[in-house]
Parts: sequence; C-alpha cells; structure tokens
Amino acid sequence: MRYELYYWSGIQGRGEFIRLALEDAGAGYRDVARDEGDAAIMPFLEGAHQGALPFAPPFLKAGRLVIAQVAEILQYLGPPLNLVPESESRRLYAHQLQLTITDVVAEIHDSHHPVASSLYYEDQRDEAERRAEDLRQNRLPKFLGYFERVLERNGGRHALREYSYVDLSLFQLMSGLDYVFPRAMQRLKRELPLLCALSQRVAQRPRVAAYLASPRRLAFNEDGIFRHYPELDDPT
Amino acid sequence: MRYELYYWSGIQGRGEFIRLALEDAGAGYRDVARDEGDAAIMPFLEGAHQGALPFAPPFLKAGRLVIAQVAEILQYLGPPLNLVPESESRRLYAHQLQLTITDVVAEIHDSHHPVASSLYYEDQRDEAERRAEDLRQNRLPKFLGYFERVLERNGGRHALREYSYVDLSLFQLMSGLDYVFPRAMQRLKRELPLLCALSQRVAQRPRVAAYLASPRRLAFNEDGIFRHYPELDDPT
Repeated sequence: MRYELYYWSGIQGRGEFIRLALEDAGAGYRDVARDEGDAAIMPFLEGAHQGALPFAPPFLKAGRLVIAQVAEILQYLGPPLNLVPESESRRLYAHQLQLTITDVVAEIHDSHHPVASSLYYEDQRDEAERRAEDLRQNRLPKFLGYFERVLERNGGRHALREYSYVDLSLFQLMSGLDYVFPRAMQRLKRELPLLCALSQRVAQRPRVAAYLASPRRLAFNEDGIFRHYPELDDPT
Repeated sequence: MRYELYYWSGIQGRGEFIRLALEDAGAGYRDVARDEGDAAIMPFLEGAHQGALPFAPPFLKAGRLVIAQVAEILQYLGPPLNLVPESESRRLYAHQLQLTITDVVAEIHDSHHPVASSLYYEDQRDEAERRAEDLRQNRLPKFLGYFERVLERNGGRHALREYSYVDLSLFQLMSGLDYVFPRAMQRLKRELPLLCALSQRVAQRPRVAAYLASPRRLAFNEDGIFRHYPELDDPT
C-alpha cells in the first residue's frame, strides 16, 4: 500500500505524528501538499471525494479510504506498519493514550491561542500569558506526570511494554515542548526521567534519525502548534 | 456483558454520550459513581487496576478491560450494541465523526473556561466573553455546518446512512447547545434543518424518550460542560 498524506505544507503540525509513524516503518507514502501545494487539500474538504468528509487535515488516503483525525489514522496504520502490539487490550490502550496526547496537544495549541485560532497571537497575548502559566504550572505536570506513570507501570521503556506508535508520539510531544518552553521543560523534566530516556531512544532509531536529519523534517516555527514565545515560558 | 460506567455523579458531562448509547441499546450497565459516590472513581485514576490507566473519567469497565476516552468507548461499544454499521469504512467514518464531536465539545467547554479549568468562571469572564463570541460567530457555524453537510451527503436522515451512535451524540450536542446558547442556536438552526430533524427523531426513540423522562437524566447545570451564562450568548 502506498499512502497519501494530506497536511499543510509549511509546518510540522498535527501531520508530524503521522509522518513519524510512516517514516519509522519505512512505509511508502507521498506527502501530497508538499509536492503539489496546499490547494491539493481543498477538494477533500469541499466534498469532492465520495467517501468520508474530513473536517480538517491531516487526513490519509489509503486506496479508496479517506481517514481523518490523527489518533484514528495511527490506529488504522498501527497493525500494517507493525507499530502496535497484537492484543486487543493493548490496542485499545494505545488508542486511549494517543487520544490523551491529542488532548494535551490541543491544550498546547490553545496556550498561544486561548481566545480564537482565527485571531493573531498579538491580539490575545494577555490571555495567552494567563493560559500558558496554567499550562506550565498545572496541566503539563498533570499530563506528563501521567505519561511518566504509564511508562513506569509498563516496565519503563515503552508506553505499552512493546514499542508502538505511542512512543513515537511521546517523542514528538517532548520535542515540541522543549521548543515551546525550554525553561519550564528543564524544570519539569527533573521528574520525568523515563519520558526523557524514551525520547532519546526514539530519536536514535535508525529511520527516525535519518528522517530528523533530512529536509523532510521541517523546523518548528511560529505557524505550527508548538510555538516558542519567550514571554509564555517560565520567568528567567 | 454488564458494563460499569465511571463518571462524576453530579453532571451529564462527557459521560452522557456513553449513557445515551447504553440506554438506547437497552444494555445492562451500572453507573457506579451514582451508586457509590465519586470516590469509586479514584482507585482507577490512582492505578489500582492492573490494566489501562485512565487519565480522566469517563471510563468503562467491560469484564477485565478498562476503556477511557468517550470516542474510544463508543467505538468499542458500537458493534456489540448494534450502534454502528458493519463495514470497515463506515466504522472508521463513525469514529472520525465522533472525534470531531469530541473536538467541538472541548471548544464549548473552553468557551466558559478559556484560561484554566482550575479557575472559577468569574475569574475568566472577560476572556470567556471574547472566546464565546468567536465560538458563536465562527467555530459553531463551521462545526455544525460540517455535520449538516455530512447528513446531506448521506441521505439526510443519519450521519452514516444507517442509525449509529453518532446520531445519538449529535442529538446530545444539539441539546447541550440549545441549553448553552438559546439565542445563538435560534439563529444558527435556520441553516441546520437536517441536524434539527435528526435531534427530534433521536429524542423520540422509545428508549431514549424513556431515559430522558427518567431521573437518570440529570438536568444540564453550571458544573458540566454545557453551561448557560446569558452574557456569553448572542446579544438580545
């Protein structure tokens, strides 16, 4: 199966969770909007495709299927890409963990856009400062502490005892947060030894390392989900 | 299978999407925290159960499995409760639509808590007024317009051509929004004839109607996700 990934071409964004899975598995795929421009996304959103109507990118075309929502795409890709264990209970757990990553990613997005994603950051900067403080002080310790406990309960090396797409997504989450909040993450990571070690191991997987060193890995930037605004980080 | 649902006992909240599915299917279930108090939830969050660690309620106990996240619970319950079509492509679509409902429900929650869920509404009321305006003017028309198109493309009567748990969740979404924004919804519903008709049909399903008339259906209130603060609605 040759997959087609549709996602905005200028950012890592939510598409990156899918890209990491495809790259790590060595799957054949085309990153369509990077080849053809973002306009290639629009016919799907406008309903030109007979099947499922995606609400937003990323979505994946797999043969005639169109599948949207990051966690669902990973749930779909897990078995053919060997990125999820066999048992039903672990597959359910993988998806639950991925949905919890989805939740924290949305909260990270909203920390720089707490009023409206349609407004500029500069037009909601005061609100962003309040929300980012809550994220750094309450929500991130809660979410990341949760994932640390999940690792601890499962032997320490993987979210699910075996390697899975959840490990890849946890790597991406930690990488993004290192970019967004370098000071706060230095503080928080003291309590997250397993997550830190997992991220390092994932980054060293041969295909992941090759991908991260390639031009296909865009740099984080201030159009994506993970944005660095120094005034939103811990005070110096 | 007799299911055990765990969710905060004083609100409809996210648990209501699960309750509606169990009730409509006539499934045997126990709403544990309503029987035993919210303290019954805590051991699961603290890791006393050997299997999956939920991040937050609602979660469902099905035999030895513990399953969290609303959309995942519905994906799991769909086949045994006959609340989802047979084909893989429709099951994927059902889950995608449910995840999109999850997204809009989170945005509705954040419209009254745009800064921090740990703070009182009164401490973020100015921010809430800005965010709720964006929700009413931009986000709800986009999300609800999307679901209206989904219905239109599938024959008009169901999200998926056949009845499914997605129809139940769309009913709950529309009911909640009627409570939250009575004025804005009056305006928006002019463009949503299929969603309105679907909600009415769902409310008349015999088991749903019996449930809605029972004491098990709590009233919407200002501790839940769908809260009515008149100052956040369209101006009179």
